[in-house]
Amino acid sequence: MREIVYSTVKLKPEQRKMIEAYAEVYEAGEHGPEPKLENVNILICGPVTTVELNAMKNLRFIQCVYAGVDALPWGKIPANVVVASNAGSNADSVAEHAFALLLAAAKRILFFDSRVRDGDFEIVGESRMLHGRRLCVLGMGAIGSRIAEIAKAFKMHVVGYGRSLRSVAAVDEFYTQDSIDAALRGSDYAVVALPLTKHTQGLINYERLGLMRRDGILVNIGRAPIIVKNDLIRFLRENPSFTYATDVWWNIQNPSQDSDVYSLPNVVSTPWVAGAASSRETYEEMLRLAVENVVRYLRGEKPLNIVRHEDYR
Amino acid sequence: MREIVYSTVKLKPEQRKMIEAYAEVYEAGEHGPEPKLENVNILICGPVTTVELNAMKNLRFIQCVYAGVDALPWGKIPANVVVASNAGSNADSVAEHAFALLLAAAKRILFFDSRVRDGDFEIVGESRMLHGRRLCVLGMGAIGSRIAEIAKAFKMHVVGYGRSLRSVAAVDEFYTQDSIDAALRGSDYAVVALPLTKHTQGLINYERLGLMRRDGILVNIGRAPIIVKNDLIRFLRENPSFTYATDVWWNIQNPSQDSDVYSLPNVVSTPWVAGAASSRETYEEMLRLAVENVVRYLRGEKPLNIVRHEDYR
Repeated sequence: MREIVYSTVKLKPEQRKMIEAYAEVYEAGEHGPEPKLENVNILICGPVTTVELNAMKNLRFIQCVYAGVDALPWGKIPANVVVASNAGSNADSVAEHAFALLLAAAKRILFFDSRVRDGDFEIVGESRMLHGRRLCVLGMGAIGSRIAEIAKAFKMHVVGYGRSLRSVAAVDEFYTQDSIDAALRGSDYAVVALPLTKHTQGLINYERLGLMRRDGILVNIGRAPIIVKNDLIRFLRENPSFTYATDVWWNIQNPSQDSDVYSLPNVVSTPWVAGAASSRETYEEMLRLAVENVVRYLRGEKPLNIVRHEDYR
Repeated sequence: MREIVYSTVKLKPEQRKMIEAYAEVYEAGEHGPEPKLENVNILICGPVTTVELNAMKNLRFIQCVYAGVDALPWGKIPANVVVASNAGSNADSVAEHAFALLLAAAKRILFFDSRVRDGDFEIVGESRMLHGRRLCVLGMGAIGSRIAEIAKAFKMHVVGYGRSLRSVAAVDEFYTQDSIDAALRGSDYAVVALPLTKHTQGLINYERLGLMRRDGILVNIGRAPIIVKNDLIRFLRENPSFTYATDVWWNIQNPSQDSDVYSLPNVVSTPWVAGAASSRETYEEMLRLAVENVVRYLRGEKPLNIVRHEDYR
């Protein structure tokens, strides 16, 4: 009996064919037969509901199209199901967005553009250099590594923090495990590029924000709940020269409820667009890599990016 | 008799001492004796008026503190006066600003930040990647070379255009002299990093703008008059997906008169702050290098950055 693959996202015809060489393929929302969820062995998602997941009694492999797997309903995924993220699939796009946010804050692009539109060319205050500054990259996966590489081209002093010691050419200092305070201390800038796991939730609190320079910039292209929201709001209010530049939000379903953050003057905001959401090209690359990984699994090879259940439950 | 050095900008005490080892030093606006302008042999500027320059009958060397020398009153500078620019002194700062403008436009930071502040998280339109895109760097001096280096870290295809063929590791293609059309053709992005000379004034006209992609981005951190203003306005009106992101302006004394450009929706503006104007650190580095070059001259060594009179008159 052939494996049953169910995808909650639309596949391209050639991608579907690649999988059909090994398995039956069903796509959500398409015309034609729907699979019985209890027969599904392999799930490609995208969004998936708890109800759907509950019904998949014969599930063995989940391939997430998104880079992060934190939004999966982990309470409903049996321990024997192999779960693969799509880490790295959007690394270039997200790393570029991190620098767009960092540079917008450092060079005060929003402040100046708005004044110039009012005909006001008076030059007030100080812009900040990247050159020579201490940049702490929190999370040294594919995105963090790309950020570090680009930072070296800007001649920054790059400090990496990650779960395990990695050899990353672009990093001047590396910290791991419990040494996050040493990584953050004295940093001019920091970028949150960590996955959201039970270990990283709330990692950045008031005390850790205080380790950075008072005129620092904190960029978040990872996940909002890695930062304790109320601690951040208090810190931003107390330190008007500090800037929080973010693409990610606490209220996933309705981020407009995060107005207590985005209405602050020292916040630069984008609406969760660093990856695929506003780049068709990035989404297509993510889909391509997700399908490749499913084919890897179907061939009996070890898929890339297998995540540890215990990090998420 | 000792040489007379006159500086229209304030020197630091230690910088003054470095020069005093070789010459008498006078600073504009300081208490104490003023030099007779006719005795001045070496001018460090900053701004300088035509009247002042006219009076300096014994001038032999001008050291400009700014990177560009286009604002000097060239009609009043005798051909035997050696003029040194301060090219390269602000290269890191200006190159960073170029990427701040490019990324703000590519990732639509102004558009999205403004919407998020209104509570609107709807994702519309496409953001643009730097990765893999063709970036044409017009002007391969110190600033252009730094831009090219950083662009390679973003994995861009970098096309250089300059007066003379240079070996620049970071450039994938190099064009010179009359081949600017070939350099611009098909470019996603271009950065103007040329000096303003009689050769570069009006170099970018309507036809050359049309060589770029219709959804392209043109960044200007060089000088505004390198672009034909009315041609640019027409092109921006006809191509709403094209973005002009600029730090420099046509009306030097009163840039608020350039509202025909900065009021357009597809323009990102900063008020001439890429270099020293909003960075004390950058200004101090520029002053340090200017003084070093004056000392070089006083020691009888050849100064750096000597410009050709014929390029400016």
